[in-house]
Amino acid sequence: MRAFKFLRRPVGPKDVAIEIQYCGVCHSDIHTGLGHWGPQKLPLITGHELAGVVVAVGGSVSRYRVGDRVGVGCMVDSCGVCSECTVGFEQFCTKGTTWTYGSPTSDPTGVTQGGYSNVAVVKEHFVISVPDNIELAAAGPIMCSAVTVYSPLRHWDVRPDSKIGIVGLGGLGHIAVKLAKAMGAKVIVLTTSSDKVADAKKFGASDVIVNYDKASMDKYSRSLDFILDTVPYKHEMDPLVSLLKRDATLCLVGVGKADEPNQLAPITNVLARNSFAGSLIGSIRETQDVIDFCSQHNISPEVNLIPIQQINSAWREVIDKKARYRFVIDMTSLKKEI
Amino acid sequence: MRAFKFLRRPVGPKDVAIEIQYCGVCHSDIHTGLGHWGPQKLPLITGHELAGVVVAVGGSVSRYRVGDRVGVGCMVDSCGVCSECTVGFEQFCTKGTTWTYGSPTSDPTGVTQGGYSNVAVVKEHFVISVPDNIELAAAGPIMCSAVTVYSPLRHWDVRPDSKIGIVGLGGLGHIAVKLAKAMGAKVIVLTTSSDKVADAKKFGASDVIVNYDKASMDKYSRSLDFILDTVPYKHEMDPLVSLLKRDATLCLVGVGKADEPNQLAPITNVLARNSFAGSLIGSIRETQDVIDFCSQHNISPEVNLIPIQQINSAWREVIDKKARYRFVIDMTSLKKEI
Repeated sequence: MRAFKFLRRPVGPKDVAIEIQYCGVCHSDIHTGLGHWGPQKLPLITGHELAGVVVAVGGSVSRYRVGDRVGVGCMVDSCGVCSECTVGFEQFCTKGTTWTYGSPTSDPTGVTQGGYSNVAVVKEHFVISVPDNIELAAAGPIMCSAVTVYSPLRHWDVRPDSKIGIVGLGGLGHIAVKLAKAMGAKVIVLTTSSDKVADAKKFGASDVIVNYDKASMDKYSRSLDFILDTVPYKHEMDPLVSLLKRDATLCLVGVGKADEPNQLAPITNVLARNSFAGSLIGSIRETQDVIDFCSQHNISPEVNLIPIQQINSAWREVIDKKARYRFVIDMTSLKKEI
Repeated sequence: MRAFKFLRRPVGPKDVAIEIQYCGVCHSDIHTGLGHWGPQKLPLITGHELAGVVVAVGGSVSRYRVGDRVGVGCMVDSCGVCSECTVGFEQFCTKGTTWTYGSPTSDPTGVTQGGYSNVAVVKEHFVISVPDNIELAAAGPIMCSAVTVYSPLRHWDVRPDSKIGIVGLGGLGHIAVKLAKAMGAKVIVLTTSSDKVADAKKFGASDVIVNYDKASMDKYSRSLDFILDTVPYKHEMDPLVSLLKRDATLCLVGVGKADEPNQLAPITNVLARNSFAGSLIGSIRETQDVIDFCSQHNISPEVNLIPIQQINSAWREVIDKKARYRFVIDMTSLKKEI
């Protein structure tokens, strides 16, 4: 990765200009950057977990003022009038959501450029307010990783009497454990990293299963109300479904390499009428909801601050499952030589 | 396949003895017989779409009398006391359902033997009453093929304003079209057999898509409330999911070869929060429900009567998609040389 200078668009009437102070490092950045999801138009600046301070607002902006602490997640625009947008599902816009990086745009760069950057210009609707008790460095990861797990936890109705599984204890999984615990659920973590067991329990897990350990898998057979699977690479899913009660769902939010399809044995979903579902980040309303929920419950992602100069090694550590748990770039480092 | 003589158990207090007059030929018989689902203890008589007449009843039997017209489907026993049995899901019995063939049993044969046979002895609870206006030859396929599609159509709430897809127009698919149409749904059939288009419409389909024809796939993109997929071999499913509305489900009832997992691209379910589900036949209550529903709506499977002597070629025709639409064995043929 190399530095790239570009211009944001001028601040329009409905726009908010943000000085980006922090940006989280998401596995999607890596999948995109390494071409796992197909070719990209280069140069491309990744990053969709932005947090910073408002430095200018357009004339029609009503919700934000200069100095406000704000965040931006995976989306920066959508049509606003289609059947999905009008019911608040900007991420499913039938005309095509404008993602924070890599989407066609009329901005000077032709494609949207992400948050590994010092400034952003974003439509007011897509800007999230950061509550006072959430540190800006922690706000970024809430914009993507937290809402991506919060949305399915809510949609599949996780509640105090729920017993659920969280698969993968990375950037998404670790915050999912904290959120689900705060919702009152009993949380079982499944991980391939035996050295994460203590952390999982610290975050709120009641039990941890390492590498599909047979005794534990037998113990939890057909016992879970829901499983949230955050692993962003192809992995064995049949054993996970065997933990679900009849009619329960496994929702995968980790999107693996495009050329490595997910696999399920023919009989897997049949045995207890289970479902294998997917979920895509969350709506703008849900993004505001989750950061407010974090504020109310004193929940924060585990942040590992890095300068931009360490981004390549940070990506490597994420792939190698060494991140603990979310790298966040301190954007003051952009002022130094890259 | 060869003839095999064996003894049924003596009629116990809760048992019904049935002279089998007809037995449907299900793709499950073929998968089982050809080892697609793993090795079987031989000899094994397949067949789980039995229809016939009661010839004896045990002392505690209250619902049936000698001479009654009855059917038996995929199950002949379950524990009756587990969490699934007590809520009427015999097919999900946690102790293990006793299937009509191939399950361990205390009967003289050691494993249950199916309906390609002249007599059966079955617990009263697992015997279905055949309404007067349903021909016995047509009753057999209702015991498995019809309930297997009826159960998910009901579970996923297909109703008059529903627009649904039925994938595959074979033994299951053709009766699914008739049932869904009778439920008031608008039915789109997807098939690989262009010569089945006229039949699909005759059975009640409003439109037919052949081989994922691009114009039709585009026309129905994100428009369906539910898809019932009856294809019992591995096939491309990503294009099917693209037809589903947000939050809608594709339910697969066709179970393919054990060593050929179903595949979905990583992004497929994510794009509109879709689910890929499975469903396993239906309960005993649902089996009675579906034959009563068929009776009320004058629905019958399309039956192609064959003597047992033609069973091997019939299996071949089912595999080759040449069955129109359900082979049913006329058991009087058992009296001739096999």
